[in-house]
Amino acid sequence: MVTINEYTLTLADIGNDALQNIETLFAQANGAIGVRASLPIPEKDSKPGTFLNAFYESHDIVYGENAYGYAKKHQTMVNLFDFKCIQLMIDGDSELTLKKKELSLDMKNGLLNESYLYESQSGKILEYQVESFASHFDRRVYAQRISLKPVNFSGVVKINKEPQAIRSVKDSIFDPRVKDASVQLHQSGNKYTTPNSKRSFYVKFDSIATEQFMNAGEVVMYDQLYQISIENEFYDNTYELLKMKQIEIFEKFWQSSDIVIEGDTILQKGVRFNLYHLFNSAGRDGCSNFSAKGLTGEGYEGHYFWDTEMYLLPFFIYTQPDIAKSLLSYREYTLPNAQARAKELGFKGALFAWRTINGDETSAYYPAGTAQIHINADIAYAFQLFERVTGEEEFIEQNCEIIFETARFWLDYGFYSQRGFEIHEVTGPDEYTALVNNNYYTNKMAQNNLYYAAELARRMEVNKEESEKWQAAGKAMFLGFDSDLQVTPQDDSFLIKEPWDFKNTPKENFPLLLHYHPMKIYKHQVLKQADTILAHMLYSENEEQIGRDFDFYEPLTTHDSSLSKTIYGVVASKIGRHEQAYHFFRESATMDLEDLQGNAAHGIHAANMGGSWLGLIYGFAGLRCEKDKLITSNQLPKEIKSLKFTLTFRGKQQTFKIG
Amino acid sequence: MVTINEYTLTLADIGNDALQNIETLFAQANGAIGVRASLPIPEKDSKPGTFLNAFYESHDIVYGENAYGYAKKHQTMVNLFDFKCIQLMIDGDSELTLKKKELSLDMKNGLLNESYLYESQSGKILEYQVESFASHFDRRVYAQRISLKPVNFSGVVKINKEPQAIRSVKDSIFDPRVKDASVQLHQSGNKYTTPNSKRSFYVKFDSIATEQFMNAGEVVMYDQLYQISIENEFYDNTYELLKMKQIEIFEKFWQSSDIVIEGDTILQKGVRFNLYHLFNSAGRDGCSNFSAKGLTGEGYEGHYFWDTEMYLLPFFIYTQPDIAKSLLSYREYTLPNAQARAKELGFKGALFAWRTINGDETSAYYPAGTAQIHINADIAYAFQLFERVTGEEEFIEQNCEIIFETARFWLDYGFYSQRGFEIHEVTGPDEYTALVNNNYYTNKMAQNNLYYAAELARRMEVNKEESEKWQAAGKAMFLGFDSDLQVTPQDDSFLIKEPWDFKNTPKENFPLLLHYHPMKIYKHQVLKQADTILAHMLYSENEEQIGRDFDFYEPLTTHDSSLSKTIYGVVASKIGRHEQAYHFFRESATMDLEDLQGNAAHGIHAANMGGSWLGLIYGFAGLRCEKDKLITSNQLPKEIKSLKFTLTFRGKQQTFKIG
Repeated sequence: MVTINEYTLTLADIGNDALQNIETLFAQANGAIGVRASLPIPEKDSKPGTFLNAFYESHDIVYGENAYGYAKKHQTMVNLFDFKCIQLMIDGDSELTLKKKELSLDMKNGLLNESYLYESQSGKILEYQVESFASHFDRRVYAQRISLKPVNFSGVVKINKEPQAIRSVKDSIFDPRVKDASVQLHQSGNKYTTPNSKRSFYVKFDSIATEQFMNAGEVVMYDQLYQISIENEFYDNTYELLKMKQIEIFEKFWQSSDIVIEGDTILQKGVRFNLYHLFNSAGRDGCSNFSAKGLTGEGYEGHYFWDTEMYLLPFFIYTQPDIAKSLLSYREYTLPNAQARAKELGFKGALFAWRTINGDETSAYYPAGTAQIHINADIAYAFQLFERVTGEEEFIEQNCEIIFETARFWLDYGFYSQRGFEIHEVTGPDEYTALVNNNYYTNKMAQNNLYYAAELARRMEVNKEESEKWQAAGKAMFLGFDSDLQVTPQDDSFLIKEPWDFKNTPKENFPLLLHYHPMKIYKHQVLKQADTILAHMLYSENEEQIGRDFDFYEPLTTHDSSLSKTIYGVVASKIGRHEQAYHFFRESATMDLEDLQGNAAHGIHAANMGGSWLGLIYGFAGLRCEKDKLITSNQLPKEIKSLKFTLTFRGKQQTFKIG
Repeated sequence: MVTINEYTLTLADIGNDALQNIETLFAQANGAIGVRASLPIPEKDSKPGTFLNAFYESHDIVYGENAYGYAKKHQTMVNLFDFKCIQLMIDGDSELTLKKKELSLDMKNGLLNESYLYESQSGKILEYQVESFASHFDRRVYAQRISLKPVNFSGVVKINKEPQAIRSVKDSIFDPRVKDASVQLHQSGNKYTTPNSKRSFYVKFDSIATEQFMNAGEVVMYDQLYQISIENEFYDNTYELLKMKQIEIFEKFWQSSDIVIEGDTILQKGVRFNLYHLFNSAGRDGCSNFSAKGLTGEGYEGHYFWDTEMYLLPFFIYTQPDIAKSLLSYREYTLPNAQARAKELGFKGALFAWRTINGDETSAYYPAGTAQIHINADIAYAFQLFERVTGEEEFIEQNCEIIFETARFWLDYGFYSQRGFEIHEVTGPDEYTALVNNNYYTNKMAQNNLYYAAELARRMEVNKEESEKWQAAGKAMFLGFDSDLQVTPQDDSFLIKEPWDFKNTPKENFPLLLHYHPMKIYKHQVLKQADTILAHMLYSENEEQIGRDFDFYEPLTTHDSSLSKTIYGVVASKIGRHEQAYHFFRESATMDLEDLQGNAAHGIHAANMGGSWLGLIYGFAGLRCEKDKLITSNQLPKEIKSLKFTLTFRGKQQTFKIG
């Protein structure tokens, strides 16, 4: 049933074959290193890239107007090198023209195959092939096997292959979501250091530099390992060994995580593509996490967001619990930063950074950054889900301070009024509304955080007095409802805002954030992404109410965020709107392949990839985790005949087939 | 009754004699040039300063995170030179110690007298005296008459006196309200140019450089004129002539603007001091305005705010209508910038800059900048007041586009709902609450703007259709009222916020903005300054309601803004709370003399100075402008026996005596 083709991505499979797009989609990564699939000989629009997860340069943030408590330092994941490039010369001629390129991403085995034909000015054609991978066995290694063949000539071929520095390229188009990540590194031996924050890493590689006469049709091959690490410690590995291990590791990965969709080969490939990237970009060491763009591009500066907890961790928790544990451990690792941040802002407990690499807040626009304090509850939610699915109570108890400290924050940030326990001056998931009171999603998630902390405290027999307060605040949580409209208000003021004039908004003015001032956006009923609907996906069983809210919010939603459609899709499934669900799912499954957001060049949309897993498993398969078992239901749209997938529940793999 | 002493300020009159404080308080200005009263030989803490109104350097604003429509350029009034300093040598010794200083500001005549004793290392004492003024006759000129006298020796005295560049001093204490204003100017002949924005001005002066033997007790004198102008055009004037003119001009000024307070010499001096500075720092040329700190310091970068319209213009309109006209003309001069800004933000009409020098928005924090769109209505209000008091309909009709364009903005920015015409996502005068819906002050002022535009259009027989819409929107304006609390809500959400915990806020944590993150401040019931109460000062006649609102808001008000107490004072008078009114007035009358805000070093608090005039005239004298006459009423507190003042109404001076 499954053909090899569905694990293979070629240029024919993608909707936008601009250079930078290809570089992202065919990028390789192993959770520690990421390498963009750039050309061997860069062209004008090339944006090569090599990233080391959690390795960043930092600078003081300059504010037009500063204020107390603003985030102090930028953190920018550094684009370290071009690992792909080669200097080629045919009979002394280095001005070569690219005549043909073929890329084939073998997702089954975690390998990339590239083939290029380069022609000299006098018409001599050289074939340049590379098989490469970011090793999942030794995460320090990016491995390449190069082969050269003169196609129509015999002559002297000269090559030189070693890492090249990244040149700084300023984007001419205004887009605050991306920032130049090139840095002029200081080199001393094999040690490289960022100029400002003096962070270092080490590189080991054997450069290739040869000049030899080759006969037409003759093939020469070179194996080359680029190694890169924070510690100056490297192992001796051969290409062959690492390749064998790579294939083994990917076999296990697909065994535990594959999803087989019968009836739609495009979706099948899209989903595999997404799972492949999810597996590749997740940090494994407890000190790194999953960047919004994975390790495939410079977008969002390599920062970690709530994306990890709400969009990525469900996939990992259900299929790769060890990776899930690493990602959660990262939050434990940054708890001291979160405690310091809460204190700085004048609150008890811990407030996790909205965007960060090292755990410190780096959001330089707090209304759509720090104010998204729901991050606290998102993290608690992910720990709770991990516990429910894996049953690993011990891990949770070891990390209980995260749950307690976030609960302490909520208790202090919120307050009791006549209406209950209210939480003011927050920004919910929807970033087209900011600094509001009682964002429904935030309150609902905070309620869960408070309840979970109280439950954990009872179980562990600690914090007795506090746990009663947490329980009480959770119970008193204000959750609005508009009885006239029969709609769940996104926040206290959303329903009285002026509706956005969609009719007179030209298509090219989306995403709105690039074309309208925040004041204009915020004052209207317009959503960047699912907000109340996300809360309903997680907590509501009232199909009628979900449906009314869906009908109210969806037409107001621009889906300018890539975190949106997937959630609407899951919820559509939940309330039996299978056609809509399919429509949303399709877009999320192929978002980067088709470049539907228009900026895949900046890197994959990781959260959406995790979201497409949610669309299939939470949505079409209706997965629910009840006390001691997993329950599914058939919510398949008519376009999909069946769905087969494997989950790991309480340490055991279970395979499900729907339809 | 009036003694000369009450027009003279000496060091004995001020509460904080730190160098920078003295520099501000004794500063001299003429609306074009301002010169701080720094020492002849600067000391470590000196902050000398010479400013040219509306002359600024500009730089791109760097944002930690940029967004569409943000203000693009900083504008910083440049601190050009030290005009006060002199190089002195006594018998070859230049390490002199300041033994004695006396300053005497002759406000009656607009002259500053300084006297210093400098001692050489061998005990030789030289007396250095300066009489100086910023000429109101020729606004290019800062004039000094210097005299030197060896007190206890005969010997060689060497002097060198010419303008010195300002060295850059970085404040070590975090304070976003002040910014280094020094610039390394490029000099070419007598032309000086800012390095980045290439703005130029010209200087003319005769340097003094002599070395001569002087006998003990012998006096030598030098007159020195420093001239500075955007055009390279200067007049020949003598010190004597300019001094004579200065005295004449100040005589006229006091004739038309003085206020005589019987019963309190401290207040008398405080008020004169305030009026003196108001007269000195107001731009006269229609292309400059009145900086928040006048021309006396670097605070707020020399920017113009709503302070002009709401705090300063009443004084000028009632006493110096020509200056008032210049200040209003400045807004007309920047109308094209305001039109462009509205368009950039996606709205019709004009939106005036919240803070600016050249008319372009320079606020780099829009929630407490651009969002204060009440600036539009404040400007319309001032035009309207000018018309009512001066009767100059023609001037208004010439400038009608300001009134129409601001009305057009309101009609587009607001919208109709079931509750009426609402205005969302604004920040009112109180900057401790931001981005709210239906700020009462804003709505009330916008209503007035719309009505005034409609009235003007009817009168001029233009914009018929539009004027009906303006009238209708004004009439439909949503103005909230909480019938449970019987309080006028500052905005839609203010009354449901958590009250600020004043009890646990240590005194050193004020002003809050320097010690708490905006999120913490905004989510609480806490005011920086009068907001709803300011609307009541202007529009409400319901004493009972004003009283209830006063009692609700005043305890929540930190008065962290210098624009606050004066308004509470006027309103206290209005509702017969004379003791409170006196208390507020006293603080506003002596705010800078006593350094009550703690930052007089950065420059005078101009708005508060205008506010102290309001306290006396609107407050204690209960001034109201009815159709064809001015009406006063006796609201004097018991501490003040009587009040005598002069106003100009419809071209005629009238003198009033209250009590």
